[in-house]
Amino acid sequence: MGGQIGYAEQVDNYPGFPQGVGGIELGRLIHQQATKYGLTTLVAEAVGIELREEQRVVKTTQGDFIAKAVIIAGGSERNKLGVPGEKEFIGKGVSYCATCDAPFFNQKTVAVIGGGDAAITEALHLAKFATKVTVIHRRNQLRASRILQEKAFSEARMEFLWSTVVEEIDGENSVNRIRLRQIENGKKSTLDVSGVFVSVGSKPSTGYLKGLLPLDDSGHIVTNDRMETEVAGIFAAGDIRHNSARQAITAAGDGATAAIYAEKFIAR
Amino acid sequence: MGGQIGYAEQVDNYPGFPQGVGGIELGRLIHQQATKYGLTTLVAEAVGIELREEQRVVKTTQGDFIAKAVIIAGGSERNKLGVPGEKEFIGKGVSYCATCDAPFFNQKTVAVIGGGDAAITEALHLAKFATKVTVIHRRNQLRASRILQEKAFSEARMEFLWSTVVEEIDGENSVNRIRLRQIENGKKSTLDVSGVFVSVGSKPSTGYLKGLLPLDDSGHIVTNDRMETEVAGIFAAGDIRHNSARQAITAAGDGATAAIYAEKFIAR
Repeated sequence: MGGQIGYAEQVDNYPGFPQGVGGIELGRLIHQQATKYGLTTLVAEAVGIELREEQRVVKTTQGDFIAKAVIIAGGSERNKLGVPGEKEFIGKGVSYCATCDAPFFNQKTVAVIGGGDAAITEALHLAKFATKVTVIHRRNQLRASRILQEKAFSEARMEFLWSTVVEEIDGENSVNRIRLRQIENGKKSTLDVSGVFVSVGSKPSTGYLKGLLPLDDSGHIVTNDRMETEVAGIFAAGDIRHNSARQAITAAGDGATAAIYAEKFIAR
Repeated sequence: MGGQIGYAEQVDNYPGFPQGVGGIELGRLIHQQATKYGLTTLVAEAVGIELREEQRVVKTTQGDFIAKAVIIAGGSERNKLGVPGEKEFIGKGVSYCATCDAPFFNQKTVAVIGGGDAAITEALHLAKFATKVTVIHRRNQLRASRILQEKAFSEARMEFLWSTVVEEIDGENSVNRIRLRQIENGKKSTLDVSGVFVSVGSKPSTGYLKGLLPLDDSGHIVTNDRMETEVAGIFAAGDIRHNSARQAITAAGDGATAAIYAEKFIAR
């Protein structure tokens, strides 16, 4: 329980835990608390939602569930590089969230994989902590906005490797180096780093909602500040939302907001 | 530190604390955590915000503060009855939030003071727990919407006292009774209750923002789901927001969302 937060060895930015809390532990605590107040949990894959007058029918691999209101909180998954070492070193140098993990790399060297707005924003954030940030991008120029590019190019702690892909993440107890390949000339090299931040997009699991709900270009669900979608009685919360700040605390807040407005919707 | 949450003797619905946490303690924990990561705190009253090109100048009773971005998180204050016993019994039977405190009144009798949508919604929620809910309203009819009124009048556990005001809240260690006066005939009476839910509106402290930011009819700040107001660089979070769900967890989530988008705004 807890989804992506389970990858975080230590969560320092969930308000209420000044000494931090383990990601798996935080998921467990919240699940235990909700269960105490009546939550029942079913593990199944949602495959569709049908609207029938006042009913919303959630189709799952464990059968159909009829509800007056539905809150979709399926999260999103960061796209992976899919290279050897990536999975093994998650939480041990491999991260998908600079906002969460940058302070752990104070005075260390890191690599950022990607070239979009998110990657460069993360790289600039990391440059406040790390001694060197190497941006590794498979193309020969960034996709990020011009203003972000200007900032990145004028940041003394940042370096760029163009037309380069990661072939392997390697280390002893945690990440120590990555093995690279230059696409144009095929030349291989090794870069010593303590951290690898992968920022190559994220994918919410919303394929089954296409045609039912408005989604943004990356497939995230569009809501207003009451977590309402355009379809009455269907709400969304957390990382699956367009504009989600993608933090445990904002997801928890979204969830409470969605629940309160869902209850108001049912009580209309 | 913590604002209104300090009135809650026990907070059971802040995710992460299955055994609950004291309201003052929760405020202290969050303040300690933020301070550990660099928060500095100044106690002062904000009296105005001036826009000067790229600067937002926050005028306070302790001087002016120049910022690129400002997050307004001033909360809101529930309107009080202003009767003897009210202040003394806050957290000991007097509550301003049925969503927070209803489960404490399981199998007990309670009064709800007010007649608007919020009061009737709270009364209906309380009727799921309490054996009897008496709605006490100073007028001879409800202001609440017709649908809510129909629900209220058909709820067997609810009773209504019209044209009636509370003169005193009384009890031993916690609330045991309230003293009432019928406005039309001046007749006084006593009602035995364990809880008094006061729902006579809330007031955010936003008078100093009029003309600068769009406010709703009750003076709350209008934002989008990124916590942005219509004025670039000015954000709002928590109970001071229009559509806030008025919970500690939603305020914490709002705050994180506002901080992340404020940082993005500064880094543009």
